[in-house]
Amino acid sequence: MGSFSSFRDMLDAIAERGRRLLGTSQNPKQRVAMEEIVLQCEHLLSSRGEASGLALAQDILSAWKELDDEEQPRFMRELLTRFGADDARIENAIEMYRSDRSPENLAALHEAAEPKRQELIRRLNAAPDGTRSLVRMREKLLGLLKSEPELKAVDSDFQHLFASWFNRGFLQLRSIDWTTPAHILEKIIRYEAVHAINDWNELRSRLAPADRRCFAFFHPQLSDDPLIFVEVALTRSTPDNIGDLLDETRAPLKPGEANTAVFYSISNCQDGLRGISFGNFLIKQVVEELRREHPALETFVTLSPVPGFARWLKSAEDEENTLELSRLRDHLSSADWHRNAEIITEASPLLQRAAAHYFLTARAAGGRLIDPVARFHLGNGARLERLNFPGDVSARGLRESHGLMVNYLYKLDDIERNHEAYAERGEVVASPEVRKWLAAGSTGKTSSRTQEKLNA
Amino acid sequence: MGSFSSFRDMLDAIAERGRRLLGTSQNPKQRVAMEEIVLQCEHLLSSRGEASGLALAQDILSAWKELDDEEQPRFMRELLTRFGADDARIENAIEMYRSDRSPENLAALHEAAEPKRQELIRRLNAAPDGTRSLVRMREKLLGLLKSEPELKAVDSDFQHLFASWFNRGFLQLRSIDWTTPAHILEKIIRYEAVHAINDWNELRSRLAPADRRCFAFFHPQLSDDPLIFVEVALTRSTPDNIGDLLDETRAPLKPGEANTAVFYSISNCQDGLRGISFGNFLIKQVVEELRREHPALETFVTLSPVPGFARWLKSAEDEENTLELSRLRDHLSSADWHRNAEIITEASPLLQRAAAHYFLTARAAGGRLIDPVARFHLGNGARLERLNFPGDVSARGLRESHGLMVNYLYKLDDIERNHEAYAERGEVVASPEVRKWLAAGSTGKTSSRTQEKLNA
Amino acid sequence: MGSFSSFRDMLDAIAERGRRLLGTSQNPKQRVAMEEIVLQCEHLLSSRGEASGLALAQDILSAWKELDDEEQPRFMRELLTRFGADDARIENAIEMYRSDRSPENLAALHEAAEPKRQELIRRLNAAPDGTRSLVRMREKLLGLLKSEPELKAVDSDFQHLFASWFNRGFLQLRSIDWTTPAHILEKIIRYEAVHAINDWNELRSRLAPADRRCFAFFHPQLSDDPLIFVEVALTRSTPDNIGDLLDETRAPLKPGEANTAVFYSISNCQDGLRGISFGNFLIKQVVEELRREHPALETFVTLSPVPGFARWLKSAEDEENTLELSRLRDHLSSADWHRNAEIITEASPLLQRAAAHYFLTARAAGGRLIDPVARFHLGNGARLERLNFPGDVSARGLRESHGLMVNYLYKLDDIERNHEAYAERGEVVASPEVRKWLAAGSTGKTSSRTQEKLNA
Amino acid sequence: MGSFSSFRDMLDAIAERGRRLLGTSQNPKQRVAMEEIVLQCEHLLSSRGEASGLALAQDILSAWKELDDEEQPRFMRELLTRFGADDARIENAIEMYRSDRSPENLAALHEAAEPKRQELIRRLNAAPDGTRSLVRMREKLLGLLKSEPELKAVDSDFQHLFASWFNRGFLQLRSIDWTTPAHILEKIIRYEAVHAINDWNELRSRLAPADRRCFAFFHPQLSDDPLIFVEVALTRSTPDNIGDLLDETRAPLKPGEANTAVFYSISNCQDGLRGISFGNFLIKQVVEELRREHPALETFVTLSPVPGFARWLKSAEDEENTLELSRLRDHLSSADWHRNAEIITEASPLLQRAAAHYFLTARAAGGRLIDPVARFHLGNGARLERLNFPGDVSARGLRESHGLMVNYLYKLDDIERNHEAYAERGEVVASPEVRKWLAAGSTGKTSSRTQEKLNA
Repeated sequence: MGSFSSFRDMLDAIAERGRRLLGTSQNPKQRVAMEEIVLQCEHLLSSRGEASGLALAQDILSAWKELDDEEQPRFMRELLTRFGADDARIENAIEMYRSDRSPENLAALHEAAEPKRQELIRRLNAAPDGTRSLVRMREKLLGLLKSEPELKAVDSDFQHLFASWFNRGFLQLRSIDWTTPAHILEKIIRYEAVHAINDWNELRSRLAPADRRCFAFFHPQLSDDPLIFVEVALTRSTPDNIGDLLDETRAPLKPGEANTAVFYSISNCQDGLRGISFGNFLIKQVVEELRREHPALETFVTLSPVPGFARWLKSAEDEENTLELSRLRDHLSSADWHRNAEIITEASPLLQRAAAHYFLTARAAGGRLIDPVARFHLGNGARLERLNFPGDVSARGLRESHGLMVNYLYKLDDIERNHEAYAERGEVVASPEVRKWLAAGSTGKTSSRTQEKLNA
Repeated sequence: MGSFSSFRDMLDAIAERGRRLLGTSQNPKQRVAMEEIVLQCEHLLSSRGEASGLALAQDILSAWKELDDEEQPRFMRELLTRFGADDARIENAIEMYRSDRSPENLAALHEAAEPKRQELIRRLNAAPDGTRSLVRMREKLLGLLKSEPELKAVDSDFQHLFASWFNRGFLQLRSIDWTTPAHILEKIIRYEAVHAINDWNELRSRLAPADRRCFAFFHPQLSDDPLIFVEVALTRSTPDNIGDLLDETRAPLKPGEANTAVFYSISNCQDGLRGISFGNFLIKQVVEELRREHPALETFVTLSPVPGFARWLKSAEDEENTLELSRLRDHLSSADWHRNAEIITEASPLLQRAAAHYFLTARAAGGRLIDPVARFHLGNGARLERLNFPGDVSARGLRESHGLMVNYLYKLDDIERNHEAYAERGEVVASPEVRKWLAAGSTGKTSSRTQEKLNA
Repeated sequence: MGSFSSFRDMLDAIAERGRRLLGTSQNPKQRVAMEEIVLQCEHLLSSRGEASGLALAQDILSAWKELDDEEQPRFMRELLTRFGADDARIENAIEMYRSDRSPENLAALHEAAEPKRQELIRRLNAAPDGTRSLVRMREKLLGLLKSEPELKAVDSDFQHLFASWFNRGFLQLRSIDWTTPAHILEKIIRYEAVHAINDWNELRSRLAPADRRCFAFFHPQLSDDPLIFVEVALTRSTPDNIGDLLDETRAPLKPGEANTAVFYSISNCQDGLRGISFGNFLIKQVVEELRREHPALETFVTLSPVPGFARWLKSAEDEENTLELSRLRDHLSSADWHRNAEIITEASPLLQRAAAHYFLTARAAGGRLIDPVARFHLGNGARLERLNFPGDVSARGLRESHGLMVNYLYKLDDIERNHEAYAERGEVVASPEVRKWLAAGSTGKTSSRTQEKLNA
Repeated sequence: MGSFSSFRDMLDAIAERGRRLLGTSQNPKQRVAMEEIVLQCEHLLSSRGEASGLALAQDILSAWKELDDEEQPRFMRELLTRFGADDARIENAIEMYRSDRSPENLAALHEAAEPKRQELIRRLNAAPDGTRSLVRMREKLLGLLKSEPELKAVDSDFQHLFASWFNRGFLQLRSIDWTTPAHILEKIIRYEAVHAINDWNELRSRLAPADRRCFAFFHPQLSDDPLIFVEVALTRSTPDNIGDLLDETRAPLKPGEANTAVFYSISNCQDGLRGISFGNFLIKQVVEELRREHPALETFVTLSPVPGFARWLKSAEDEENTLELSRLRDHLSSADWHRNAEIITEASPLLQRAAAHYFLTARAAGGRLIDPVARFHLGNGARLERLNFPGDVSARGLRESHGLMVNYLYKLDDIERNHEAYAERGEVVASPEVRKWLAAGSTGKTSSRTQEKLNA
């Protein structure tokens, strides 16, 4: 008993019949005027035939891709204005509802208030590979929001439907390793967003060793295209810098020797699914999977970048030029400071104290945490465990965070409590080691661990 | 790269953590008072924790199953009354919308008008095996609608969400044959709704021969439980009775010898998914699959029961006791008439004329076709091709349709046009052979084909 | 990347080309004279063409199946006489070897002494489904050996080649359960040789409950046709009768509750593979698999029939009519004695003492153990652990062993030592409980365990 | 129903038990003296225990890998001298056989004449991953044969057993493409022996385009390690040079547009399986597979290197310095001649005539064809179809064949006849176009096709 691989082929065949009925022929590369596409959308919304509906949906999606950078926004504005709700129908439903607050009248009101583009998007989704095309369409839409914020109403319809179609019951967790098909692996290379994978040899060193794992979520309608993936290192302790962790010359641990799982890179793959949350659940599911495979694992922790730190520090210096910040700035502006043990020793306490403020007291306008990675992990119920300086001396690490990395700790029994503290009261749960920097004066002393690293 | 089979296990593990947080323990067989379950539902709606949400959802679904036949309807009424919309919020949204018909205000109105139970059902769906439990819940709900029609509002929320979750992009067509796992085959035996399969030997004769096929739709969240399936016979001509078709002693055709595919049994498997349409698409997809596998197939046709015919004929006799109907009744009330060639010869034209009226002119209150099987196939775009008398002399066939069976023809190039004729204008597309019975007087002549059968 | 299912089709296609070259056409059902087949065999041995070789092999195997019960033995005798070795070549090789005992000359002698039928069988094996046909051919051959013992030389060539083709590196252990495809399950029903499975419901009760397992060996060239399988019950103690074990009304244990795995039925499926040993390795591999899945399992034991006991007891009585045997005979000849607790109580010690002699001291001509099941398990390194009376009161159980069953214990750390004791010194390793019956006089006392059962 | 992946693990577990029995412990990296390994081999041959046998086999194979370059040959010599046959037993068997030429005595002689090392190799094969280790061992052995030709007797035992274990019934044809797991693809890169694949991008261009295919044979006991693979280009005509064929910038044909399948690279992967023939069958099976997938394919042809040509031409010049050869030599010794259209035009007929002699009349000592690629394809039944000059201007192509490439044509209906002509009479089947060069005088004219290429 096998599932047929040719589902797409069949949709194509049915759409082709529909196209004959419509008296049209598919020519995906042919340019169609934007106005024509809008008419096809209206036709699709009123159509009752299945095959012709499929054909229309396919043609609309194909033609939309060929629109140029002026027409695509115009199409979106048409979605906003022409595919909203029917005022008269809403008014009627309001009157009915007010006269009798029955469930039927409520349902009628609810239905009347649904923008027509929701149904349009649903019907487009039936086309062969429709979901993939709609994800791409939303990717473009998101790019327009800054300049045309009124399109947010269109986006919220996309988001509403995507949240339903990508609900987590449909997400499939798969292990990615060196036995994974190449056409998927090349996507891992392409989508890796944190620590770039430069070629297949580097990829191999991330996936093949016995102490490395990778997991991704897939969705049935975007098969072979991961939604999000996490790279994991199995280690004997919580790592404090990415260089050692990714060192290709290290001797891999044997399975069973590791007691710590380190999530060192999490990459979202589909820009068009922004705001549809998978990462939260990915980490929890991977934790459960790793615990099952490796009962000896005790600690689940990240080694994470701090992408907003350098920019925040700059603005903090601008606002409030303390002596300490000024000394820190001097250190960090020396050429190649990260190769100079003396500077590191002196900068370390200054930088860590600044970082503690960044995480624990500084807030963006609106009151939320500045750092997006921190928001993600703290929102998931992790604890800010340790500041690592210097943790990432790559060009990007130096530019974005002056080399700082942090560990977030996923302690299973505390996750839910931490999550609630953060979600409901905005509390950042942090280890005493991190907290103490808030209190500490400028001691000029580096931590014993940093000292060890410098001596090593 | 493998998909983990233990997704359910992981959900269970996460729910178990949530349960520890809630300070509860799962005991699925323990009776929980209906009111308590309602409180848990409210808790679930307001909860923000993921693990505790999973635990609550799982506990609610488990406890609901243990409610007795009085409590389950009461729970449904609570869904209707306590989990509707918030009047004040709606009024507020109405005011806002009237003051400014912006997309945002429309969206706010739409959201406010959504009954809270929709979000509740969504959250219950996240529980391990939640979808399956909700399908069972709706099955119960549908059974209540006759006595408590106001629950239709609750059902329409279920239906709205199921239509999204079971949209056809998620349906997987699989071939069912004698190499299919036994735990799925036993469901085929159980769900067969048209021509009962009495044991595994009969099942084998439906699936194993080279001239038999079976296809089913599956859904990722109800894995191993088919949604709908169709049984197909490959033949050399359009069959006119089910007995010969299912005769286990016939010599099977070799692949390639057949030119006709006969859909002789279509069974919906999940009562809780009533109204969510799959059958339409199933037949089209199976036609494409069969054409791909067997390019020699030219004709796609059903051999279908006429389940409403006998009851309609009875009521027609009661209303309008013509001589002809009275003669027909006399024939059909003879004991064992179907073994008497003389009676059959005489009854045949009478019965076929009555049947032509049943399909072509008779209508139920509300104007729709009486016969549910006819509604299904004509709605799919098939044509009523031929009346077969006697086509099914099983006890059920005699009881429901006086032995009548019909063929519906799926002619690919006409499907869409037929569908539209039926859907938009209520037209029944029928072959001239069927139509002529409307015009014909009582000739007392049987068709040459029936004559052949009698002589055979 | 997939393995093609159409390997057979390709062989067929290539053979078909060969057949065109040979100017013949395949007609598998046509009778071909035995002498003609022998000529084809000689042609096959001298042929160098691949396609024509395939075609010849296929034709020979097809034609052979159509030979009647007189011709098949005649063909085998031709294999014996016409496809032996070439005397002159052997003599030449002997001379060469004696003149120079070089490795080359040894190899030449070895090759010259190989009967030509070995190469013939190898070439027949290349035909589509050749292995399966040769297994069937040997099945027939084995049936001839009693009346034509000189054919043993032909059989030893089959056996030599089969041992190589079915070497254990190729055997695939698969779990058989209720999700196994039906076409394999129907073979389990057919091949079950110990406790018959009467229908699919009984099969389900053997495979589906959580405390039942079944494992089979498969071979790549006999795919979907098991070679041997073992049925396993997971229990809380060593069972003493088959009736309770197979009771369909019992409450299944949950996984994890069991501490004992009981091998209660082992069936060889292919008569044509007699003497090619798989069972030995099957049990060891299943033990390892079960230990991995269920770490709580401590005891691995059989519940086994004693198929040779009743016949031996009869012959023992004939030879040596002691008072005790005479009393035992009297008990066992009462009608329905197995329903009479008093008789059981009295017969039990007599029968167990007789059984102890049967296993521990009695031997067949040639000195080997009489009981084939005992030979199998003791040869595998198991220990004769317990006598169970009455353990099997089915008609077969009463007829073959007067209701006696035994347990053989597989204690992993002793298996190798037990095996060597048996294989090298013919020692039967038995528990003290069994051994004591050798010493015991006729006490007339039944064991406390039997007593418990009778009281129960 | 799944096949367990842990077969190796189980063998390991059983071997571990055996090791405990033997009182040894595995330490694969520890050096063991060669003499000790020989003793273990003798122990293995006499052992009857299964677990201890597995442990011994595993230890022997592990220890053998650690032997150094002096000890491995010494071990092989021990195999030759200490694991041959037992002279006394042979003499005895000879006497028995001469006294009575019965099948039993023949079998006894055959068995006595089998070198003991065959049984030793069989037992080593039972170790976890034993087959793979033995293939590696033979690889080393083959490297020794030149300096120690007497070891050929040992090799012939390996070869005899490998021919049985790798018989084609066990070979699995799999398609290799861009969805193939990476750990297999990296082996394709490594094993490609004809036109090197330099990195993953080149690999992609060989596998991913719609007009490229690749097929490999696998064996169950060397899973994930191909035995041999062939790369195929689908084209619109028979190609005459490798550069255009592999040009990554070409526009790929759509499936269905091609009418020609070109086998342009065939690579054996396992040196230790030299002489075990798969390639013959690979091409036939791939042809059948391609025909099934692409019914429009009409021509199956190779584009092949001529690796022995340059060396032969050199020796031919040395022997017989004709004016023509001397002119050819002058042309080919010009720097960068392959970029000079004039030289190519003049050299072309000279070189093609020389090539015709190389293929059609020149023979190696022993009378066989000089070119190994020609031996392979002609032995398979292909026809030498066309000489292509220049066909390969890579460094290697220039060095080995002065840029010459050839096409061998696989015409299905002629394969068997061609094969027999070659195998039985040594005839090289060549097209008239090739043959005519034998007759032609030195015309100084280039073929019209070459002219076209030069003008292009």
